[in-house]
Amino acid sequence: MIKYPNGEVYKPSEVKNARKKVMGDKNNSNRGMSLEKDISLSCEFYNDRKLTLIYKRPTPIKVVRMDKINKSKITEGYFSMKSTTDYNGVYRGKYMDFEAKETQSKTSFSFKNIRPQQITHLRRVHELGGIAFFIIRFTSLDETYVVDAKDLLDYMELDIRKSFPYSFIKERGELVENAYNPRLKFIEAVDKIYFDKK
Amino acid sequence: MIKYPNGEVYKPSEVKNARKKVMGDKNNSNRGMSLEKDISLSCEFYNDRKLTLIYKRPTPIKVVRMDKINKSKITEGYFSMKSTTDYNGVYRGKYMDFEAKETQSKTSFSFKNIRPQQITHLRRVHELGGIAFFIIRFTSLDETYVVDAKDLLDYMELDIRKSFPYSFIKERGELVENAYNPRLKFIEAVDKIYFDKK
Repeated sequence: MIKYPNGEVYKPSEVKNARKKVMGDKNNSNRGMSLEKDISLSCEFYNDRKLTLIYKRPTPIKVVRMDKINKSKITEGYFSMKSTTDYNGVYRGKYMDFEAKETQSKTSFSFKNIRPQQITHLRRVHELGGIAFFIIRFTSLDETYVVDAKDLLDYMELDIRKSFPYSFIKERGELVENAYNPRLKFIEAVDKIYFDKK
Repeated sequence: MIKYPNGEVYKPSEVKNARKKVMGDKNNSNRGMSLEKDISLSCEFYNDRKLTLIYKRPTPIKVVRMDKINKSKITEGYFSMKSTTDYNGVYRGKYMDFEAKETQSKTSFSFKNIRPQQITHLRRVHELGGIAFFIIRFTSLDETYVVDAKDLLDYMELDIRKSFPYSFIKERGELVENAYNPRLKFIEAVDKIYFDKK
């Protein structure tokens, strides 16, 4: 645990994640495009075509000190705890909110990948009539799924396992087509889950 | 104009605004509660009662350098240009996006208060079926209005003036009731504009 000057407490793994998000992951550079990069490019594609307006939430940073001379320069800051999910925006008038995660495992997706505040947040989005989901990539299989958050959260609450079996995600989720542009046709998967079936 | 190491160019007024947002406005401390504080507290009220889920967007910060020893400490950062509106979230399943502004004037609200990227952004939210509005406070009159973004943007496009007359905002907007908790009953105004009339 790392304690901040503002009294907030942060797990080292969360610091690592936040750091990776703002500074990039150098260890990952030769593994090809990351899921996050694919999603951001796909959002740009959909936004440019005026189909959606989806933004990546900025990583919240607590600014403690500014430069006295250069008024635009921050000289001391810390990652803030308040972060929820990666993306939100509007599609077909609806509020849309989602988190992207990837795993090396071929057989399961660990609950550890989902933070408690993300569970609370996505549950609330669902309750308020918004569209809440996860984009989960099994990197070793090169398969990416859109899975409704409610399906995942309900399964977690059953408390029978510590991970989602791959078969569960494959069955409940919608496989996202890889393409050139957009790289991930995830809006088509969202259509199938939230709009076509109704 | 201030040029950043990453090549972005920033107006001094924008730097001042971003700085005020993250560091607080010391000059404003004896003028009582700011509009932003009122809105944040009101959002908390509505969120706690599970009526909405509205968040203030974090001010985007470009992190340039991290401390080598303390892995959670940012030692050089700059405000990023990419900022759009202050708040977004979900209400009645709909995507909601708004910007809060205050003016000392008793007679008009200058177009200068609205940045070009906010115009583009809120226009797009409206086009995609989301709820897009401004919360405008005439501090000298102690009157706060919710005004549909489309009404304001259409008026700006007429290009006949450089500000909205107070009378226009009073007529098109919905006066927000001041209260103790929530301080600003702006969701009630949103209901009147976007839901009751339909």
